[in-house]
Amino acid sequence: MKLVIKVTGKFFDDLGDKAPLSASIKSLVEEGHRVALVTGGGSTARKYIGLGRSLQLNEASLDLLGIWVARLNAFLMAMSMPDLAYAKVPENLEQFLEYWGHGKVVVVGGFQPGQSTAAVSALVAEAISADYLIMVTTVEGVFDSDPKKNPNAKFLPRVTTAQLKTILESSQSVKAGTYELLDPMAMKIVERSKIRVIVTNVDRIGKITRILKGEEIASIVEPV
Amino acid sequence: MKLVIKVTGKFFDDLGDKAPLSASIKSLVEEGHRVALVTGGGSTARKYIGLGRSLQLNEASLDLLGIWVARLNAFLMAMSMPDLAYAKVPENLEQFLEYWGHGKVVVVGGFQPGQSTAAVSALVAEAISADYLIMVTTVEGVFDSDPKKNPNAKFLPRVTTAQLKTILESSQSVKAGTYELLDPMAMKIVERSKIRVIVTNVDRIGKITRILKGEEIASIVEPV
Amino acid sequence: MKLVIKVTGKFFDDLGDKAPLSASIKSLVEEGHRVALVTGGGSTARKYIGLGRSLQLNEASLDLLGIWVARLNAFLMAMSMPDLAYAKVPENLEQFLEYWGHGKVVVVGGFQPGQSTAAVSALVAEAISADYLIMVTTVEGVFDSDPKKNPNAKFLPRVTTAQLKTILESSQSVKAGTYELLDPMAMKIVERSKIRVIVTNVDRIGKITRILKGEEIASIVEPV
Amino acid sequence: MKLVIKVTGKFFDDLGDKAPLSASIKSLVEEGHRVALVTGGGSTARKYIGLGRSLQLNEASLDLLGIWVARLNAFLMAMSMPDLAYAKVPENLEQFLEYWGHGKVVVVGGFQPGQSTAAVSALVAEAISADYLIMVTTVEGVFDSDPKKNPNAKFLPRVTTAQLKTILESSQSVKAGTYELLDPMAMKIVERSKIRVIVTNVDRIGKITRILKGEEIASIVEPV
Amino acid sequence: MKLVIKVTGKFFDDLGDKAPLSASIKSLVEEGHRVALVTGGGSTARKYIGLGRSLQLNEASLDLLGIWVARLNAFLMAMSMPDLAYAKVPENLEQFLEYWGHGKVVVVGGFQPGQSTAAVSALVAEAISADYLIMVTTVEGVFDSDPKKNPNAKFLPRVTTAQLKTILESSQSVKAGTYELLDPMAMKIVERSKIRVIVTNVDRIGKITRILKGEEIASIVEPV
Amino acid sequence: MKLVIKVTGKFFDDLGDKAPLSASIKSLVEEGHRVALVTGGGSTARKYIGLGRSLQLNEASLDLLGIWVARLNAFLMAMSMPDLAYAKVPENLEQFLEYWGHGKVVVVGGFQPGQSTAAVSALVAEAISADYLIMVTTVEGVFDSDPKKNPNAKFLPRVTTAQLKTILESSQSVKAGTYELLDPMAMKIVERSKIRVIVTNVDRIGKITRILKGEEIASIVEPV
Repeated sequence: MKLVIKVTGKFFDDLGDKAPLSASIKSLVEEGHRVALVTGGGSTARKYIGLGRSLQLNEASLDLLGIWVARLNAFLMAMSMPDLAYAKVPENLEQFLEYWGHGKVVVVGGFQPGQSTAAVSALVAEAISADYLIMVTTVEGVFDSDPKKNPNAKFLPRVTTAQLKTILESSQSVKAGTYELLDPMAMKIVERSKIRVIVTNVDRIGKITRILKGEEIASIVEPV
Repeated sequence: MKLVIKVTGKFFDDLGDKAPLSASIKSLVEEGHRVALVTGGGSTARKYIGLGRSLQLNEASLDLLGIWVARLNAFLMAMSMPDLAYAKVPENLEQFLEYWGHGKVVVVGGFQPGQSTAAVSALVAEAISADYLIMVTTVEGVFDSDPKKNPNAKFLPRVTTAQLKTILESSQSVKAGTYELLDPMAMKIVERSKIRVIVTNVDRIGKITRILKGEEIASIVEPV
Repeated sequence: MKLVIKVTGKFFDDLGDKAPLSASIKSLVEEGHRVALVTGGGSTARKYIGLGRSLQLNEASLDLLGIWVARLNAFLMAMSMPDLAYAKVPENLEQFLEYWGHGKVVVVGGFQPGQSTAAVSALVAEAISADYLIMVTTVEGVFDSDPKKNPNAKFLPRVTTAQLKTILESSQSVKAGTYELLDPMAMKIVERSKIRVIVTNVDRIGKITRILKGEEIASIVEPV
Repeated sequence: MKLVIKVTGKFFDDLGDKAPLSASIKSLVEEGHRVALVTGGGSTARKYIGLGRSLQLNEASLDLLGIWVARLNAFLMAMSMPDLAYAKVPENLEQFLEYWGHGKVVVVGGFQPGQSTAAVSALVAEAISADYLIMVTTVEGVFDSDPKKNPNAKFLPRVTTAQLKTILESSQSVKAGTYELLDPMAMKIVERSKIRVIVTNVDRIGKITRILKGEEIASIVEPV
Repeated sequence: MKLVIKVTGKFFDDLGDKAPLSASIKSLVEEGHRVALVTGGGSTARKYIGLGRSLQLNEASLDLLGIWVARLNAFLMAMSMPDLAYAKVPENLEQFLEYWGHGKVVVVGGFQPGQSTAAVSALVAEAISADYLIMVTTVEGVFDSDPKKNPNAKFLPRVTTAQLKTILESSQSVKAGTYELLDPMAMKIVERSKIRVIVTNVDRIGKITRILKGEEIASIVEPV
Repeated sequence: MKLVIKVTGKFFDDLGDKAPLSASIKSLVEEGHRVALVTGGGSTARKYIGLGRSLQLNEASLDLLGIWVARLNAFLMAMSMPDLAYAKVPENLEQFLEYWGHGKVVVVGGFQPGQSTAAVSALVAEAISADYLIMVTTVEGVFDSDPKKNPNAKFLPRVTTAQLKTILESSQSVKAGTYELLDPMAMKIVERSKIRVIVTNVDRIGKITRILKGEEIASIVEPV
């Protein structure tokens, strides 16, 4: 299968071991899957955006700083898999497609200002006609309301894209960004290309092969 | 001033003279402005998207075909101003910023799948902290409803970004894409960076200096 | 075998199905051949050259517009074979050689002003020491005179490079460009590297494997 | 004059204001100087090298991670001077020379594994035949012994390259890297091209114009 | 004026001073002209082509070796004019146009197999709409027959492109390559774009400003 | 195994057959090894450095001329192995890593001023975690003193890195550069990454498979 794995930038915040992610990807490749990895920026991105803001950079430049940090995280992971991964981090979708054609794992940070890492991962998934977009996040999966606010939020192991859209929109009507899985651009691409999305927690980053087999907690979002 | 001019792809559909656009840009540069030009794809883009669809390309690839045609239109205009314009069409925002630094007119087609030419022009306007984003379209300017549907639609010479957003959303609630000035991504960037937008008709493409002086029909959209 | 297929730009003029070309290439690859494809520009190229001429572009710039359209056709075909073809269209012979080294089908539009697509295909054939250069044209093959002018022109299934040269030179003495298979630059390369050329009609674009086996109408031009 | 300013990565460690560096460069440019800036990696570089080490990356890859962070710092400073600085960070000396030719401030992070930022700044200074290489460090200038170890270390306002070499070599004989101004490669380049070096403290980063006039504490190292 | 200077590779064969060429270009720039320089490969090119031939390289690869040496000569001259010349040698016409836009002297070696340095210089002259293409050769100028064979060959200070074509064709009918000023491709471009050509001897390489004023021996070839 | 072969530039000085080097590499690849080749510049490099010096280029530019010639030698060898070698010569270590990832033989000339070809080969060996760095030189191997000066110099078939360092340092104390196997930068990398080095003579360039098996004269330098 063709898989896109999107990992929250938070994964890179501490000095903890990042090997479980490399190990998961290695297992997937050994099982015959093709994998693209998309990494977020995390707290280092926020540090640099803060430095940029104090230097009065405009929004586009601030986004570019965040993209650079996401690419640094991407480069770290690419270097950790010298036999599996393409040695360069693509800077736009056309480069991604060129590198992908070489049959390697391609690791992506970000592409351009004005879009989230989620949108980047959706673009990548669409471009390769991926079987699944696996979002490794800070939540357990999809809930019917924001679990950080509602202790009775119900976990949804299976949900349609349309249902997720409704949940996200109601959530965002409270406060933008508080429950961000798929921003509008990512959602638009997921919808138009009917991309299947799996949402799971970063704690399970070493168990992605098990997630694909349904042996770990995760929500699956399907186009219907 | 720093200006971004976004021209509808329709301008390139026929074999009519394209010199009025070059002439407008030349005048603006001579008056001391810096100019970035963003071109749409038009009917040639639609032709290639049609060919791609019959070859069963995915959505990302179809968008890339449209982007290539928009870049072809950009290249045509760049070649028509050999002393003013940068000889290469940038393929992403980082390249755009590099070329822009050389002090030339930079002509852009498109950047990546999943976004409109309007979004590209908003990204460019944000990145250079433009004074105005001038949208040269198939309509006269902003109306309080879609003039193609409502013969009593009222022309609005001056409107806030918030008002435009309301108009576009109500319009799109009828049928997506029928009245497309700024898609959601373009709108998001225009809002967050408080970009002033001028909307005018392609018939006035040779009179952009007059539009800036308020001597031609156009709507101006301001952040407050 | 190593094959270069050169397809007339006319193939891309209408909205007809382009899948027979992809299918031919897929068959050739499955039979173990390596394939480079060179596409012409056709009527879209002529449209843009016309637009450029009305903008008073010089000859080099006009040629570049034609090259861009040929590259657009190349990109369309590359996108139609995502598993077989290299995702980028090379812009010069050195890039071509780099991409070719990856073992994929490489699709080429044009390289530089002042040379025909036929010359490009001869350059490519020489650089990879191709077994055959297959020219898919608007004629059935090689005739002893221009079949569009002479109803008694005789079809030649087998001809030497020297004979073809004589025929083309006599033809061109009437009016340059009326019977263009190989322009002087293409001819020079074909001669110096003793490249075998097959000439066939675009109607047989889906049957190139049969042409190689001599089961379809085509002329073969051999160095002696 | 042509100036290369090398800033310790420590400058980027905290969230303090980085504007004094931009301001210094702006003043220098306004006074008619040409400026290249080289930035170190600092604690973020060490964080990523630590992450890489726990992933068992080889030394070359670890150095590349440090280089990426130094480039991130370079990019931050380039974005803070959109009208003065080249928008791209060069990745090797040949790119640097190309960008430098455009008359802009060029900001450099690192070039390749196996060499310090000091060596990078010496390479850059040599390539542009710089008048001064200004090293903005964590020390006040050159001392006759390591001031962190010897409270009686004597500050040397003026010293020859040969003297500095002797001091550094005796210092390094104690423990490599404890007093690193110029590593052997940087020293070799400074010597062969007779580059004049100024050493000052990062506290004076906003006063480089004054340093050049001898109005601030700094040591000057001259080839004799 | 816009000038293209094409210098025979023979100029780079010995260890003699190459400064007169830099000096000529410097004078031309100071007089307000814009200059592109095209260099041949000379004996070093022949050495490498010989090495390549003994390694059984194909014709395209042999030509590429010659192009690399011509680019080495180009790089040498570019480095000798660090304030005037663009620091990179373009590898195709599109790159040339990009670099040319920066207002610098651009130095070119070769572009692709299958064409002479004369053809490269004609392509460059056409692309920038040059006022003159100045060919610095091993002959004094244009003669009515090959002066190396005919001691009575008459020097022609002024000749039309058509006349030159006739002379070259009769000359080449004896033995290809013995009297090569403009090969067919170069001639085709000179003709179609009506480029004025000046032919002079490499002995006068330091006097190009005088040649332009008609104060040194040279032939001028005009489109009529 | 992963092997880096570094060949003295002297190998390219004469017109003798270079096929034994291609043949050695072909054998190594057929035996299942992966190979990177690093070529020196030789007498052609010295010729161009001489031309550059008479044009008063700075040291960085002179080094770049030498690097260009080393790359020309690299390109020659790459072209001689069209099925085995990557068609482009990388210009820095990051490009090298990208090309290396494609599974081909990668041929390198030089990377940047201020470092020897030996340092380049050590960088490459470190970056790919090579099993051996094979230095094909003008000497037979490592001696306990300079064999060109001391007729009683003793050949050392096996030596530690530390011993080699002592020998080189004592040798260089006499006159810099007279006995150059590993300059300080190369030595530093060899030490820090514990790279095993084999030293042999250019006469055995066609017998590298035998050298690896210990069947030809060579010294092996091991980290302890």
